[in-house]
This record gives sequence, structure tokens and C-alpha cells, in this order.
Amino acid sequence: MKKITTCFLLSLACGALSAAPVKPETYVQRRASVMEKMGQKGMLILFSASPKKFTGDVLYKFRQEDNLYYLTGIKQEDTILVLMPSNKTRKENLFILNRDPARETWTGSRLSVEEAQKISGIGNVYSRSEFDDFVDSLLYGRPYGVNRYLNTEEYAQFFSQLKFGDVPVFLLLEERPGLRGQLSQEFEFANKLRERFPGITIRDCSDNLASLRLIKGPEEIDRVRRAVDITTEGVLDAMRKMEPGMHEYEVQAVVEFHYIKNEAEWAYPSIIASGSNATTLHYDRNTRKIAHGDLVLMDVGAEYDYYASDITRTVPISGRFSPAQADIYQVVYNAQEEAMKALRPGKTIQQVHERATEAIKAGLVKLGLITDPNTDQYRHFFMHGTSHWVGLDVHDVGVRSAPFQPGMILTVEPGIYVREDLLDTLVRDGKNGEWVEKIRPAFEKYRGIGVRIEDDFLITPDGYDHLSHKIPRQIRDVEKWIQTNRSRSARTQ
Amino acid sequence: MKKITTCFLLSLACGALSAAPVKPETYVQRRASVMEKMGQKGMLILFSASPKKFTGDVLYKFRQEDNLYYLTGIKQEDTILVLMPSNKTRKENLFILNRDPARETWTGSRLSVEEAQKISGIGNVYSRSEFDDFVDSLLYGRPYGVNRYLNTEEYAQFFSQLKFGDVPVFLLLEERPGLRGQLSQEFEFANKLRERFPGITIRDCSDNLASLRLIKGPEEIDRVRRAVDITTEGVLDAMRKMEPGMHEYEVQAVVEFHYIKNEAEWAYPSIIASGSNATTLHYDRNTRKIAHGDLVLMDVGAEYDYYASDITRTVPISGRFSPAQADIYQVVYNAQEEAMKALRPGKTIQQVHERATEAIKAGLVKLGLITDPNTDQYRHFFMHGTSHWVGLDVHDVGVRSAPFQPGMILTVEPGIYVREDLLDTLVRDGKNGEWVEKIRPAFEKYRGIGVRIEDDFLITPDGYDHLSHKIPRQIRDVEKWIQTNRSRSARTQ
Repeated sequence: MKKITTCFLLSLACGALSAAPVKPETYVQRRASVMEKMGQKGMLILFSASPKKFTGDVLYKFRQEDNLYYLTGIKQEDTILVLMPSNKTRKENLFILNRDPARETWTGSRLSVEEAQKISGIGNVYSRSEFDDFVDSLLYGRPYGVNRYLNTEEYAQFFSQLKFGDVPVFLLLEERPGLRGQLSQEFEFANKLRERFPGITIRDCSDNLASLRLIKGPEEIDRVRRAVDITTEGVLDAMRKMEPGMHEYEVQAVVEFHYIKNEAEWAYPSIIASGSNATTLHYDRNTRKIAHGDLVLMDVGAEYDYYASDITRTVPISGRFSPAQADIYQVVYNAQEEAMKALRPGKTIQQVHERATEAIKAGLVKLGLITDPNTDQYRHFFMHGTSHWVGLDVHDVGVRSAPFQPGMILTVEPGIYVREDLLDTLVRDGKNGEWVEKIRPAFEKYRGIGVRIEDDFLITPDGYDHLSHKIPRQIRDVEKWIQTNRSRSARTQ
Repeated sequence: MKKITTCFLLSLACGALSAAPVKPETYVQRRASVMEKMGQKGMLILFSASPKKFTGDVLYKFRQEDNLYYLTGIKQEDTILVLMPSNKTRKENLFILNRDPARETWTGSRLSVEEAQKISGIGNVYSRSEFDDFVDSLLYGRPYGVNRYLNTEEYAQFFSQLKFGDVPVFLLLEERPGLRGQLSQEFEFANKLRERFPGITIRDCSDNLASLRLIKGPEEIDRVRRAVDITTEGVLDAMRKMEPGMHEYEVQAVVEFHYIKNEAEWAYPSIIASGSNATTLHYDRNTRKIAHGDLVLMDVGAEYDYYASDITRTVPISGRFSPAQADIYQVVYNAQEEAMKALRPGKTIQQVHERATEAIKAGLVKLGLITDPNTDQYRHFFMHGTSHWVGLDVHDVGVRSAPFQPGMILTVEPGIYVREDLLDTLVRDGKNGEWVEKIRPAFEKYRGIGVRIEDDFLITPDGYDHLSHKIPRQIRDVEKWIQTNRSRSARTQ
């Protein structure tokens, strides 16, 4: 345990260092890769996220759209990126808000053209208010556009392609509104374009960008590491301070204090689930008073400079697992260890999941919670996937079937959840009569216990780097850590 | 100062108590008042807020639309309230999501019909999926609607009014999209209605609801008090722990820790503005390292059970105001004291503002920052209003001209901001040449100083209740409090 404490202090010490800024060359390189995938025709247009309302006139802190940020580094609202690979003189174009001293007195300074150029590495920075003219001039050849946005020869080429309907406009169209949902600005823009220029082809660029984002570069890995270290600091401090009688939100306060004090925020709302709340997978009400003997499931993750982390620990509030809690925990731990064996280049998320599932099935049979490992019975206790990618999003983009390569980051997070109402629900639905009665004694023994263990891993050439290893996971390590480190006056600080 | 410390401990002690739940009778009464204002014809339809995306598949914690919450107490998404005052048997109708065990395993339990009835006091609770049928049956008289949603006689009456275009449909239409903004669900619904039933009249119910919400009931006052107490706890702890060398976000972490640990959250993003950052009114980047000798402006407010608080203190990081800082601070303090004299029934926000403005003008003349109090010169240093209502929103609804009545809650928040670039801007704009040169020496003396003092007040029959009085405001009190209470190891906890 000494080792863990030392590592933790180390992490606190490192904690003071911010990640180095991303160089414009990185964005230049990413845009070059996107353009290569687009081919020589067409244009890609990325819009900013829209500011999100909390209530009344209060907005949440602005969060840039991931892909626009990934390709430009610009965190300011109302920014638009236009890439035109076939254009010789102005392949890359950025539109930003004008400076406005009167508004900046209220909300802080906006980027100047020079600052936007310096961050993004894009030379052609225009005013946001020019964007409609820009699009018009490309689509209709209005004279003011030529020379300003591209030269005459380029325009002629672009326009002749357009006439044949051969210029695809790439937009982010992954989030489908369905027949009832609101149209995103990308869908509205696509519809407007099609109404006004019927020959145009609209394409979704999500997959193109997702495949790039799947392999993380060094700046990205640095940021995820930092996010993991901040979460580690928060989880360990929560383990130190928590005690029976605290509310779940008090534990949340301890964890998130470390986010804010390290210039981070949450990557997703913290889940602090005590007792049977842990059997609700995304429980985030965090209002219950924690009782002596409870397990506390903490599924928490800081976001540092737009990069996420995602860690879960399930710890006994009283410092010791009960025998029943330990039974379930050990199965989950074994499943995680088993799954980690598939973390190396060439393997897939599906293979990680299969290993975890086999270990969980074997464990559940042993505990008497399922009768037949060759059926879906286990899904009543383990109903989610084992892994997802982590990056700009906590559930990051990228196809699940992609074979692992160095630079990919993912979670491994098996769990077992014995919902209080499980047998009632099964009986009511008239399903599974026979095995339900067989497992009833075991069910009563483990009823209300929920355990998840989740860690973040970077795939390396010869296996993986276990980013969140500094928080104890094994039963004896967790118990020893709590007993050694728990503060005596946990509720006062 | 002893008094303040005692009060603070008292507040911490009270702090443990949650506000009592709002009784359904309160919602019944509020709905009756709204229906009285609507008159006997027409229907009011309130929709839930839509869930807001953070990034990827992560949503912010759901926040109900204020007015729907105010009239029902229901905090669940995808809820709709329909009021029909002329309807005898079913004046009040609520639509909520169906239970769904498979989804509830992920996100926690949904309200049952009985729970929704118990919270809101509304008997007619239908499934959300019935809403379109409900509207159709009213507008077209489809047979399944009659008897289920209203009886035959009522329907005949409603429908005959509708035929004459005499049934207004009240919706929340205050936030105008303009020609460029996205249409809210209310605007989309209004358009759909009008397309399908051209005779219908659409009206905005915002003012109707705002005038009710302006006078706070006892449960509302309790909640604002609790929010103020939680903010008080956070601000005092920040004053205790802050020291030169900390970053603004570290101060933010201390304040917001108290929000979360008291089951609250922010009512708006915290503004921690040190040095000249304080001259940006809504600065919320909070990234600067605080230097010895800086003032730190903290404009922070917890939201407790949907009710806001809004407090600003500007304190010297080193425990003592410099003479220049004290000069500015004293003018702001005097302006606040002067403004508070207009806090009694019958007065208005405008009168509060005039008192503050007169005091600020007099002070600025004395400091040499303006030459003529009969002009707008002062607006370069005090460019915002003095007061706004506080309630479900931090900038709560209600006309600004409403004469004060007991039960209204508002801020008083004068400020002076000497922007670093002020004279450059004025000179560049070619304005105000002569007085600009006259004030230059004073400007240089006070350059970069920003001070705001903001408190929350409840209007009472004979004046006001100063809700946020527990945080020191006077120069000598602030200095003494810091010197007495500042912890020696501020950065470790």
C-alpha cells in the first residue's frame, strides 16, 4: 500500500502542471488528414455548438463542438470552419465573431483575427457575418466572392463541378432528429442549401472525423492522463473522507472540489450511488444518506481541457466488505482482470467483452445467481457493454469493431447489479419460472448489491498502459487503503 | 465581528435542514390564480424544458422549465400541463412519461401516476403519448376524446367557441427566435396548430405568469433564504482560505464545494475575478493566478431546490485594502447603503437605481474620475442596473416598474469598474476629449480596479429583510474578518 500512497503524492505533485498548449501544426496536420479522406472535391462545413440555456437568461459555460475544436483549437462560440481541398489558395477558411468592446465589457475579450490565426494555423480568417455571402458567392458565383474567397480559375473549376452536382457538402449529420426531434443547425443548413441549390449533394462527415479521432495523439494522451490524475485525486480524497451518515452529495462535493481546483470540470454528472442505488446504472440524484455497511459506487470523471476520464470504484463505507459484498466484488474484479488480457493491438472491444462476460457467467453460476451459463440469464445482472472509447467525449466516437492500435483509449468496466425488484419483475412478466425459483436463496443473499469497477487504458505497442492504476481495486487493497488513510474527522475540513 | 461569526455558525447549524416540501395545495392555488387571469375561455399549455446536451451523449442534469415547475412541482422531463378554466370536470390535465423498467435500470425511477398526482394535486394524469390525441380531439372533436378528456356538453361548448376563433391558446412565447434563431418547441407547436386550425388564436402567457411569480410565497422565501445561507457559507470559507498565489478556480472550488455538499448547485456560473478581471462584468474564465495586493471579486450564488441567490463581495487577497482600492470600495459601499433606503413597499427598482447612481456620481466626482455629474460620464464606470428580481431565475421575471410589495426579492448591487483600456478606447473613438485629459491622473491611480457589492433583500411590510447580511461589507469589517479567520494553511485542506 505504501506504493499507492507514494504514487498518489506524486500525482498530486504533477497535478500542479497544466498540459502544454496544442501547437497549430497539430491542427494543420489533422485538417490535412480530413481533407485527404474527403477527396479532392467538395467542401466541409463545421459549425460551433450553440450556447445551451440553463434557465432564464443563464447559459451553461460554452462548450465547443468537439470536431470543430479538434480541427481548429477555437473554443469561441459562433465559429465556422470551411475546408475546400480542391482550392489552391484558400483551402482552409475560418469565420469568427467580430470584436465588440461594449459586449466584451460584459463577457470578456473575444479573439482577434491574429489570435485565431495563431491558435488554429489558418490564415484566412473572416468575420462570421460574411459567412452567408461566402456560401452565396460559391454557389451562385456572385462577383464579390471571387477573388475574395477564391481566385477566378478556382471558382470556374468549383462552379463547373457544382453544375454537374459533383460537389458534396460534408456536414456533421450523425445525430438524427427523427420525425419528432428538433432539427440541428446542420440539418437546417442542409435543408436550406438543398432548397436553394437542388443539385447539391449533402454528405455526413461524422465517420471520417471519428476514424481520425479514434487514434489519440500525444497532446490528447497528455490531457486524458491529466483528467485521470485529477479524478484519481478526487476519488482517493472521497475514500479518505467518507463515513456513514454522510449524504451521497457530500461525497460528490469532495470529488468535484478536486476537479474545479485543478481547472477541470465533470466529463459527465457524477454518479454517487450507495446501497441499492448502485443497481441503477446512471443514478445521479445523489440524495441518499449513506448507512453503515453500505457499498458506495462512485462513477466519476473529470474533463481536463476538453478530454474526459471515466473511473468507477465501489467501496465499503465502513472500511470492510461484508462476505456477500465481497463475493460479488470478487467476481467483478476477476472479470476485469480477465478482460484486460485482451488489451493489445489487434484485439477488439468485442473480445474484451467476451472475456468479461465469460468470467461473470462463471462467477454468477458459482454464486447461485444463474443456473445456466449458456443462456442470457446473466444479462439480468450484467446488462451493459464492457468498454467504450474515451477522448473528447467520455463515450468517444469511433466504430466499436475497430481492432486495437497504439493510441486508442478505452474503459474496461464490468459490473454486477442485483436489483431489489428483479425477481418480482421476472415473476410478474411470467418469464423464466423455473430458474427464478432456483436462484431465489442466492438472490435474497445478494439483493440490492451493485458493483462496478472501471478503469481507463491506453493501448500501447505491446499491450496497455493502465492510466487509473493509482486507485486500489483489489478487496484487500481497498480495505487497507481506507483503514490507513481515512481521516478521523471526515465531515469537517 | 463577534456577531458575524456567531451568525455564521448559526447558519451552518441551520444549514443541515432541508426546506420543507412544497404542499400540493400551493400548486393548486397557483393554478387557480393563473386561470383567473386567463379568463374563462381558452387553454394554457406548458411544455417541459428539453434536455440540454453537454457534448457527445452526455446531457446536463435535467432542469425543469420554471413555469411548469411553479404550477406543478414536477421535475421530470417530457411533462405537459394543460389548463382549461371553462372545463367543469377536467380543468387541470397533466401528461407524463410512462413507466419503463428497462430504461429506469439506467436512469432511475420515473414518477408513477399516483406520485405525479400527489406532488401536483392534479387528478387527471395521462400518458405523454396521449397528448397529440388529446389536442386532436379538442380541435376536431374526434369521438375518442370526448368523455375521456371532457364530457359531451363541455366539448360542445368548447368547440363552438373554437369555431368562432374565440379560444386563445396560451403558450410561453417570450423568447423570440428572430429570423435567425432556432424555433423553440412552443413556437413550433404554435405554428403547427395554426397550420392545422387556421381559426386558432395564439397568445403569450409569460406576463400572466411573471406577475404571479413576482410575489414570493413562504415556501419560495424559505428556499431563497437557504440558497443565500449556502452561498454565505461558501463565500466566508473562500475568504478564510484564499491567499496570494492561488488561482481563481481554486477559490471557485472552495465556494462550489459548499453548494454541492448542501444539495445545491450554482444558480449561474461563478465569477471569480481578481485584479483587473473584475472590470469584466460577467468574467467566468477563472484561470488567473491571484497576486499579492489584488482585489478578488466573487459574484456567486447557489441554487437550492430551484431557487437562486446572488451575492457579490470584493475582498483584498492580502487582508487589507490599498488606499486606492479603499477609495473606490467606499464609494460603492455608500451607494449600496444609499440605495437600500429605497427598499420599502411602494418604491421601485428605478428609485433604488437613482439613489445608487447619485451616490456613485458624487463619489466619482470626488475621486476625480468624472468632471460633470450632470452628464453620462459615470456610465463609463457604472454601466449596469442596480437591481434585478431573484427567484426561480437569478434574473427573475417580472416588470421592472412594479412598485415594491412584501414578498418581492431583489438584489442591490452597485459597482465601479475602471477598465484598463478605458481612456485608450475613448481617445481612439475621438470622444470626450477634454474631460478625458482632466481625469487622466485619477484614472492612472485607479486603473484596473473593479468593485461590486451585491446583496439579496426581501421586501417586508415595513422595509426589508437583508438576507445576505452575514457576510461583512464595510471595509473595516471585511479586513477584520479576514485577519481573524484566515486559515494558516489556506491551500491544504
